[in-house]
Amino acid sequence: MRDLYHEELDSIGATLIEMTGLVASALDQATDALLNADLQTAEKVISGDEQVDALRESLDGRALDLLARQQPVAGDLRTIVTSLRMSADLERMGDLARHIAKVARLRYPESAVPAELHESIREMGRLGVELATKTGQIIEGLDVEAARNLDEEDDAVDQLHRQLFSALLQEDIGYPVETAIDVTLIGRYYERYADHAVSVARRLVFLVTGEN
Amino acid sequence: MRDLYHEELDSIGATLIEMTGLVASALDQATDALLNADLQTAEKVISGDEQVDALRESLDGRALDLLARQQPVAGDLRTIVTSLRMSADLERMGDLARHIAKVARLRYPESAVPAELHESIREMGRLGVELATKTGQIIEGLDVEAARNLDEEDDAVDQLHRQLFSALLQEDIGYPVETAIDVTLIGRYYERYADHAVSVARRLVFLVTGEN
Repeated sequence: MRDLYHEELDSIGATLIEMTGLVASALDQATDALLNADLQTAEKVISGDEQVDALRESLDGRALDLLARQQPVAGDLRTIVTSLRMSADLERMGDLARHIAKVARLRYPESAVPAELHESIREMGRLGVELATKTGQIIEGLDVEAARNLDEEDDAVDQLHRQLFSALLQEDIGYPVETAIDVTLIGRYYERYADHAVSVARRLVFLVTGEN
Repeated sequence: MRDLYHEELDSIGATLIEMTGLVASALDQATDALLNADLQTAEKVISGDEQVDALRESLDGRALDLLARQQPVAGDLRTIVTSLRMSADLERMGDLARHIAKVARLRYPESAVPAELHESIREMGRLGVELATKTGQIIEGLDVEAARNLDEEDDAVDQLHRQLFSALLQEDIGYPVETAIDVTLIGRYYERYADHAVSVARRLVFLVTGEN
Protein backbone atom coordinates (compact mmCIF):
# COMPACT_ATOMS: atom_id res chain seq x y z
CA MET A 1 0.00 0.00 0.00
CA ARG A 2 1.23 3.45 -0.91
CA ASP A 3 1.61 5.87 1.96
CA LEU A 4 0.25 9.39 1.95
CA TYR A 5 3.60 10.83 0.94
CA HIS A 6 3.84 8.75 -2.19
CA GLU A 7 0.19 9.37 -2.97
CA GLU A 8 0.98 13.08 -2.94
CA LEU A 9 3.97 12.54 -5.22
CA ASP A 10 1.71 10.60 -7.57
CA SER A 11 -0.85 13.37 -7.51
CA ILE A 12 1.85 15.84 -8.63
CA GLY A 13 2.59 13.58 -11.59
CA ALA A 14 -1.12 13.37 -12.37
CA THR A 15 -1.37 17.17 -12.36
CA LEU A 16 1.56 17.46 -14.77
CA ILE A 17 -0.14 15.00 -17.12
CA GLU A 18 -3.40 16.92 -16.83
CA MET A 19 -1.54 20.13 -17.71
CA THR A 20 -0.02 18.58 -20.85
CA GLY A 21 -3.54 17.65 -21.96
CA LEU A 22 -4.86 21.15 -21.33
CA VAL A 23 -2.04 22.95 -23.13
CA ALA A 24 -2.23 20.51 -26.07
CA SER A 25 -5.94 21.21 -26.38
CA ALA A 26 -5.34 24.97 -25.97
CA LEU A 27 -2.84 25.01 -28.84
CA ASP A 28 -5.11 22.89 -31.01
CA GLN A 29 -7.99 25.29 -30.47
CA ALA A 30 -5.80 28.39 -30.78
CA THR A 31 -4.64 27.18 -34.20
CA ASP A 32 -8.24 26.60 -35.30
CA ALA A 33 -9.24 30.01 -33.98
CA LEU A 34 -6.37 31.63 -35.84
CA LEU A 35 -6.88 29.95 -39.20
CA ASN A 36 -10.68 29.98 -39.19
CA ALA A 37 -10.95 33.45 -37.62
CA ASP A 38 -13.13 31.85 -34.97
CA LEU A 39 -13.69 34.42 -32.23
CA GLN A 40 -15.61 32.12 -29.91
CA THR A 41 -12.83 29.52 -29.86
CA ALA A 42 -10.22 32.25 -29.39
CA GLU A 43 -12.10 33.57 -26.34
CA LYS A 44 -12.37 30.04 -24.99
CA VAL A 45 -8.59 29.55 -25.19
CA ILE A 46 -7.92 32.97 -23.64
CA SER A 47 -10.20 32.43 -20.65
CA GLY A 48 -9.33 28.72 -20.37
CA ASP A 49 -5.69 29.49 -19.62
CA GLU A 50 -6.71 30.35 -16.05
CA GLN A 51 -7.21 26.64 -15.46
CA VAL A 52 -3.60 25.88 -16.41
CA ASP A 53 -2.38 28.69 -14.15
CA ALA A 54 -4.50 27.35 -11.28
CA LEU A 55 -3.14 23.82 -11.74
CA ARG A 56 0.37 25.16 -11.68
CA GLU A 57 -0.27 27.09 -8.51
CA SER A 58 -1.83 24.06 -6.85
CA LEU A 59 1.00 21.77 -7.99
CA ASP A 60 3.71 24.17 -6.82
CA GLY A 61 2.01 24.56 -3.46
CA ARG A 62 1.83 20.82 -2.94
CA ALA A 63 5.42 20.33 -4.10
CA LEU A 64 6.77 23.01 -1.73
CA ASP A 65 4.71 21.53 1.06
CA LEU A 66 6.20 18.07 0.43
CA LEU A 67 9.69 19.58 0.40
CA ALA A 68 9.06 21.29 3.72
CA ARG A 69 7.26 18.48 5.53
CA GLN A 70 8.93 15.37 4.18
CA GLN A 71 12.48 16.56 3.58
CA PRO A 72 12.90 14.11 0.74
CA VAL A 73 16.32 13.07 -0.49
CA ALA A 74 17.83 11.68 -3.69
CA GLY A 75 15.21 10.49 -6.19
CA ASP A 76 12.19 12.00 -4.48
CA LEU A 77 13.88 15.35 -4.07
CA ARG A 78 14.81 15.29 -7.75
CA THR A 79 11.22 14.42 -8.65
CA ILE A 80 9.80 17.34 -6.71
CA VAL A 81 12.29 19.94 -7.92
CA THR A 82 11.93 18.73 -11.50
CA SER A 83 8.14 18.84 -11.21
CA LEU A 84 8.36 22.51 -10.25
CA ARG A 85 10.36 23.17 -13.41
CA MET A 86 8.01 21.16 -15.59
CA SER A 87 5.02 23.06 -14.24
CA ALA A 88 6.75 26.35 -15.13
CA ASP A 89 7.29 25.12 -18.72
CA LEU A 90 3.72 23.91 -19.01
CA GLU A 91 2.29 27.15 -17.69
CA ARG A 92 4.35 29.00 -20.29
CA MET A 93 3.01 26.71 -23.04
CA GLY A 94 -0.49 27.70 -21.94
CA ASP A 95 0.52 31.38 -22.12
CA LEU A 96 1.85 30.91 -25.65
CA ALA A 97 -1.37 29.23 -26.82
CA ARG A 98 -3.24 32.17 -25.28
CA HIS A 99 -0.98 34.64 -27.13
CA ILE A 100 -1.87 32.92 -30.42
CA ALA A 101 -5.57 33.09 -29.56
CA LYS A 102 -5.18 36.80 -28.79
CA VAL A 103 -3.77 37.47 -32.26
CA ALA A 104 -6.76 35.57 -33.68
CA ARG A 105 -9.11 37.78 -31.64
CA LEU A 106 -7.28 40.97 -32.60
CA ARG A 107 -7.71 40.36 -36.33
CA TYR A 108 -11.24 38.92 -36.23
CA PRO A 109 -13.23 38.73 -38.55
CA GLU A 110 -10.13 38.33 -40.72
CA SER A 111 -7.56 35.59 -40.22
CA ALA A 112 -4.21 37.05 -39.16
CA VAL A 113 -2.54 34.49 -41.43
CA PRO A 114 -2.75 34.80 -45.24
CA ALA A 115 -4.36 31.75 -46.88
CA GLU A 116 -1.15 30.53 -48.55
CA LEU A 117 0.59 30.32 -45.14
CA HIS A 118 -2.23 28.39 -43.45
CA GLU A 119 -0.71 25.03 -44.23
CA SER A 120 2.61 25.88 -42.53
CA ILE A 121 0.89 27.25 -39.44
CA ARG A 122 -1.48 24.29 -39.30
CA GLU A 123 1.52 21.94 -39.39
CA MET A 124 3.35 23.90 -36.67
CA GLY A 125 0.19 23.64 -34.58
CA ARG A 126 -0.15 19.93 -35.25
CA LEU A 127 3.47 19.29 -34.28
CA GLY A 128 3.12 21.38 -31.13
CA VAL A 129 0.02 19.45 -30.07
CA GLU A 130 1.81 16.18 -30.84
CA LEU A 131 4.82 17.22 -28.75
CA ALA A 132 2.64 18.19 -25.80
CA THR A 133 0.61 14.99 -26.06
CA LYS A 134 3.72 12.81 -26.29
CA THR A 135 5.20 14.66 -23.35
CA GLY A 136 2.14 13.71 -21.30
CA GLN A 137 2.59 10.07 -22.29
CA ILE A 138 6.29 10.29 -21.51
CA ILE A 139 5.58 11.56 -17.99
CA GLU A 140 2.88 8.93 -17.49
CA GLY A 141 5.15 6.07 -18.60
CA LEU A 142 8.41 7.58 -17.26
CA ASP A 143 9.47 6.85 -20.84
CA VAL A 144 13.09 8.00 -21.07
CA GLU A 145 13.54 6.45 -24.50
CA ALA A 146 10.61 8.36 -26.00
CA ALA A 147 11.76 11.56 -24.27
CA ARG A 148 15.07 11.27 -26.10
CA ASN A 149 13.29 10.86 -29.42
CA LEU A 150 11.49 14.16 -29.78
CA ASP A 151 14.19 15.76 -31.89
CA GLU A 152 12.43 14.98 -35.15
CA GLU A 153 9.28 16.92 -34.26
CA ASP A 154 11.32 19.72 -32.73
CA ASP A 155 13.50 20.03 -35.82
CA ALA A 156 10.39 20.01 -38.01
CA VAL A 157 8.97 22.95 -36.03
CA ASP A 158 12.23 24.87 -36.38
CA GLN A 159 12.30 24.22 -40.11
CA LEU A 160 8.70 25.37 -40.55
CA HIS A 161 9.58 28.45 -38.53
CA ARG A 162 12.44 29.30 -40.90
CA GLN A 163 10.26 28.60 -43.95
CA LEU A 164 7.70 31.04 -42.60
CA PHE A 165 10.28 33.84 -42.73
CA SER A 166 11.30 32.86 -46.28
CA ALA A 167 7.64 32.85 -47.31
CA LEU A 168 7.09 36.30 -45.79
CA LEU A 169 10.12 37.62 -47.65
CA GLN A 170 8.92 36.54 -51.11
CA GLU A 171 9.09 39.81 -52.94
CA ASP A 172 6.51 38.99 -55.58
CA ILE A 173 3.81 38.84 -52.92
CA GLY A 174 4.77 41.97 -50.99
CA TYR A 175 3.11 41.27 -47.68
CA PRO A 176 1.81 44.21 -45.69
CA VAL A 177 3.84 45.08 -42.59
CA GLU A 178 0.91 44.13 -40.34
CA THR A 179 0.94 40.60 -41.74
CA ALA A 180 4.71 40.40 -41.33
CA ILE A 181 4.40 41.44 -37.67
CA ASP A 182 1.54 39.03 -36.93
CA VAL A 183 3.12 36.03 -38.63
CA THR A 184 6.53 36.74 -37.06
CA LEU A 185 5.02 36.78 -33.58
CA ILE A 186 2.81 33.75 -34.23
CA GLY A 187 5.75 31.76 -35.61
CA ARG A 188 7.78 32.64 -32.55
CA TYR A 189 4.95 31.50 -30.24
CA TYR A 190 4.73 28.09 -31.91
CA GLU A 191 8.48 27.67 -31.84
CA ARG A 192 8.73 28.54 -28.14
CA TYR A 193 5.80 26.24 -27.36
CA ALA A 194 7.62 23.32 -28.99
CA ASP A 195 10.85 24.23 -27.16
CA HIS A 196 9.09 24.13 -23.81
CA ALA A 197 7.45 20.78 -24.63
CA VAL A 198 10.84 19.30 -25.46
CA SER A 199 12.24 20.85 -22.30
CA VAL A 200 9.57 19.11 -20.18
CA ALA A 201 10.40 15.79 -21.81
CA ARG A 202 14.15 16.32 -21.24
CA ARG A 203 13.51 17.08 -17.60
CA LEU A 204 11.77 13.70 -17.36
CA VAL A 205 15.04 12.08 -18.40
CA PHE A 206 16.79 13.90 -15.55
CA LEU A 207 14.02 12.99 -13.15
CA VAL A 208 14.33 9.29 -13.93
CA THR A 209 18.06 8.92 -14.53
CA GLY A 210 19.65 11.87 -12.71
CA GLU A 211 21.58 12.61 -15.91
CA ASN A 212 21.44 16.07 -17.37
CA MET B 1 30.29 33.32 12.98
CA ARG B 2 28.40 32.04 9.98
CA ASP B 3 28.41 28.29 9.55
CA LEU B 4 29.21 26.54 6.30
CA TYR B 5 25.54 26.09 5.47
CA HIS B 6 24.80 29.79 5.66
CA GLU B 7 27.98 30.60 3.81
CA GLU B 8 26.72 28.44 0.97
CA LEU B 9 23.35 30.16 1.05
CA ASP B 10 25.16 33.51 0.87
CA SER B 11 27.23 32.29 -2.06
CA ILE B 12 24.03 31.47 -3.94
CA GLY B 13 22.88 35.04 -3.39
CA ALA B 14 26.25 36.32 -4.58
CA THR B 15 25.95 34.26 -7.77
CA LEU B 16 22.49 35.65 -8.45
CA ILE B 17 23.84 39.19 -8.07
CA GLU B 18 26.76 38.36 -10.36
CA MET B 19 24.30 37.03 -12.94
CA THR B 20 22.25 40.26 -12.87
CA GLY B 21 25.45 42.19 -13.59
CA LEU B 22 26.39 39.92 -16.49
CA VAL B 23 22.98 40.01 -18.14
CA ALA B 24 22.75 43.80 -17.67
CA SER B 25 26.09 44.19 -19.38
CA ALA B 26 25.11 41.70 -22.10
CA LEU B 27 21.97 43.67 -22.93
CA ASP B 28 23.86 46.95 -22.90
CA GLN B 29 26.41 45.59 -25.34
CA ALA B 30 23.82 43.83 -27.49
CA THR B 31 21.98 47.13 -27.91
CA ASP B 32 25.21 48.86 -28.93
CA ALA B 33 26.03 46.05 -31.33
CA LEU B 34 22.57 46.27 -32.85
CA LEU B 35 22.42 50.03 -33.31
CA ASN B 36 26.05 50.55 -34.34
CA ALA B 37 26.23 47.37 -36.47
CA ASP B 38 29.23 46.39 -34.36
CA LEU B 39 30.11 42.79 -35.22
CA GLN B 40 32.87 42.42 -32.64
CA THR B 41 30.62 43.43 -29.77
CA ALA B 42 27.85 41.17 -31.10
CA GLU B 43 30.24 38.20 -31.11
CA LYS B 44 31.34 39.08 -27.59
CA VAL B 45 27.76 38.98 -26.31
CA ILE B 46 27.04 35.73 -28.14
CA SER B 47 30.06 33.89 -26.80
CA GLY B 48 29.85 35.57 -23.37
CA ASP B 49 26.45 34.03 -22.69
CA GLU B 50 28.22 30.76 -21.84
CA GLN B 51 29.38 32.40 -18.63
CA VAL B 52 25.79 33.09 -17.55
CA ASP B 53 24.83 29.50 -18.39
CA ALA B 54 27.78 28.18 -16.38
CA LEU B 55 26.87 30.33 -13.37
CA ARG B 56 23.32 29.05 -13.53
CA GLU B 57 24.50 25.47 -13.67
CA SER B 58 26.83 25.99 -10.74
CA LEU B 59 24.17 27.78 -8.71
CA ASP B 60 21.54 25.11 -9.39
CA GLY B 61 23.98 22.37 -8.45
CA ARG B 62 24.82 24.03 -5.15
CA ALA B 63 21.16 24.75 -4.41
CA LEU B 64 20.10 21.15 -5.07
CA ASP B 65 22.99 19.95 -2.98
CA LEU B 66 21.91 22.16 -0.06
CA LEU B 67 18.35 20.86 -0.41
CA ALA B 68 19.55 17.27 -0.30
CA ARG B 69 22.15 17.59 2.46
CA GLN B 70 20.64 20.17 4.77
CA GLN B 71 16.94 19.50 4.40
CA PRO B 72 16.14 23.13 5.10
CA VAL B 73 12.70 24.23 6.23
CA ALA B 74 10.64 27.42 6.15
CA GLY B 75 12.65 30.50 5.16
CA ASP B 76 15.79 28.70 4.01
CA LEU B 77 13.78 26.27 1.90
CA ARG B 78 11.95 29.20 0.32
CA THR B 79 15.28 30.92 -0.34
CA ILE B 80 16.71 27.93 -2.14
CA VAL B 81 13.65 27.13 -4.24
CA THR B 82 13.24 30.80 -5.15
CA SER B 83 16.92 31.05 -6.08
CA LEU B 84 16.43 28.20 -8.56
CA ARG B 85 13.61 30.15 -10.17
CA MET B 86 15.58 33.37 -10.24
CA SER B 87 18.52 31.64 -11.90
CA ALA B 88 16.18 30.32 -14.60
CA ASP B 89 14.90 33.86 -15.27
CA LEU B 90 18.41 35.28 -15.34
CA GLU B 91 19.66 32.61 -17.72
CA ARG B 92 16.74 33.44 -20.00
CA MET B 93 17.64 37.14 -19.88
CA GLY B 94 21.12 36.18 -21.04
CA ASP B 95 19.59 34.17 -23.90
CA LEU B 96 17.48 37.13 -24.95
CA ALA B 97 20.48 39.48 -25.01
CA ARG B 98 22.26 36.85 -27.12
CA HIS B 99 19.26 36.70 -29.50
CA ILE B 100 19.51 40.47 -29.99
CA ALA B 101 23.24 40.20 -30.66
CA LYS B 102 22.53 37.46 -33.21
CA VAL B 103 20.20 39.74 -35.15
CA ALA B 104 22.95 42.37 -35.11
CA ARG B 105 25.41 39.81 -36.49
CA LEU B 106 22.96 38.58 -39.12
CA ARG B 107 22.48 42.05 -40.61
CA TYR B 108 26.08 43.26 -40.32
CA PRO B 109 27.41 45.53 -41.85
CA GLU B 110 23.94 47.11 -41.82
CA SER B 111 22.01 47.85 -38.64
CA ALA B 112 18.87 45.69 -38.42
CA VAL B 113 17.05 48.74 -37.05
CA PRO B 114 16.21 51.72 -39.29
CA ALA B 115 17.75 54.99 -38.04
CA GLU B 116 14.44 56.59 -37.05
CA LEU B 117 13.69 53.66 -34.69
CA HIS B 118 17.09 53.73 -32.98
CA GLU B 119 15.91 56.02 -30.22
CA SER B 120 13.06 53.66 -29.20
CA ILE B 121 15.32 50.62 -29.19
CA ARG B 122 18.03 52.48 -27.30
CA GLU B 123 15.48 53.43 -24.66
CA MET B 124 14.17 49.84 -24.39
CA GLY B 125 17.76 48.72 -23.94
CA ARG B 126 18.45 51.38 -21.33
CA LEU B 127 15.33 50.41 -19.36
CA GLY B 128 16.19 46.71 -19.57
CA VAL B 129 19.70 47.34 -18.25
CA GLU B 130 18.26 49.53 -15.50
CA LEU B 131 15.77 46.81 -14.51
CA ALA B 132 18.49 44.17 -14.38
CA THR B 133 20.81 46.44 -12.39
CA LYS B 134 18.09 47.40 -9.92
CA THR B 135 17.19 43.73 -9.57
CA GLY B 136 20.76 43.01 -8.53
CA GLN B 137 20.61 45.78 -5.93
CA ILE B 138 17.24 44.49 -4.76
CA ILE B 139 18.66 41.00 -4.20
CA GLU B 140 21.72 42.43 -2.49
CA GLY B 141 19.68 44.58 -0.13
CA LEU B 142 16.69 42.19 0.17
CA ASP B 143 14.87 45.38 -0.76
CA VAL B 144 11.18 44.43 -0.88
CA GLU B 145 10.08 48.04 -1.23
CA ALA B 146 12.23 48.63 -4.33
CA ALA B 147 11.12 45.28 -5.78
CA ARG B 148 7.53 46.47 -5.61
CA ASN B 149 8.42 49.70 -7.42
CA LEU B 150 9.59 48.41 -10.78
CA ASP B 151 6.22 48.88 -12.46
CA GLU B 152 7.18 52.23 -13.92
CA GLU B 153 10.14 50.88 -15.89
CA ASP B 154 8.20 47.78 -16.89
CA ASP B 155 5.25 49.85 -18.14
CA ALA B 156 7.65 52.08 -20.05
CA VAL B 157 9.12 49.05 -21.83
CA ASP B 158 5.63 47.81 -22.73
CA GLN B 159 4.68 51.22 -24.06
CA LEU B 160 7.84 51.47 -26.18
CA HIS B 161 7.09 47.97 -27.46
CA ARG B 162 3.62 49.05 -28.60
CA GLN B 163 5.02 52.26 -30.14
CA LEU B 164 7.45 50.16 -32.13
CA PHE B 165 4.56 48.36 -33.83
CA SER B 166 2.82 51.66 -34.55
CA ALA B 167 6.03 53.03 -36.04
CA LEU B 168 6.46 49.95 -38.23
CA LEU B 169 2.89 50.32 -39.48
CA GLN B 170 3.31 53.93 -40.64
CA GLU B 171 2.17 53.61 -44.21
CA ASP B 172 4.08 56.58 -45.57
CA ILE B 173 7.37 54.87 -44.80
CA GLY B 174 6.52 51.43 -46.15
CA TYR B 175 9.07 49.33 -44.31
CA PRO B 176 10.41 46.23 -46.05
CA VAL B 177 9.15 42.93 -44.67
CA GLU B 178 12.67 42.04 -43.50
CA THR B 179 12.78 45.12 -41.30
CA ALA B 180 9.32 44.36 -39.95
CA ILE B 181 10.41 40.83 -39.02
CA ASP B 182 13.68 41.97 -37.41
CA VAL B 183 12.15 44.79 -35.41
CA THR B 184 9.21 42.63 -34.31
CA LEU B 185 11.55 39.96 -32.97
CA ILE B 186 13.92 42.48 -31.39
CA GLY B 187 11.05 44.30 -29.69
CA ARG B 188 9.77 41.01 -28.34
CA TYR B 189 13.23 40.13 -26.95
CA TYR B 190 13.51 43.43 -25.06
CA GLU B 191 9.99 43.08 -23.71
CA ARG B 192 10.60 39.52 -22.48
CA TYR B 193 13.93 40.56 -20.96
CA ALA B 194 12.16 43.25 -18.90
CA ASP B 195 9.43 40.78 -17.89
CA HIS B 196 12.00 38.34 -16.56
CA ALA B 197 13.83 41.09 -14.65
CA VAL B 198 10.58 42.12 -12.97
CA SER B 199 9.86 38.47 -12.29
CA VAL B 200 13.20 38.06 -10.48
CA ALA B 201 12.45 41.12 -8.36
CA ARG B 202 8.95 39.82 -7.52
CA ARG B 203 10.41 36.50 -6.46
CA LEU B 204 12.61 38.41 -4.03
CA VAL B 205 9.44 39.72 -2.37
CA PHE B 206 8.25 36.13 -1.98
CA LEU B 207 11.64 35.02 -0.73
CA VAL B 208 11.66 37.68 2.00
CA THR B 209 8.01 37.83 2.98
CA GLY B 210 6.54 34.49 1.88
CA GLU B 211 3.76 36.46 0.14
CA ASN B 212 3.02 35.79 -3.47
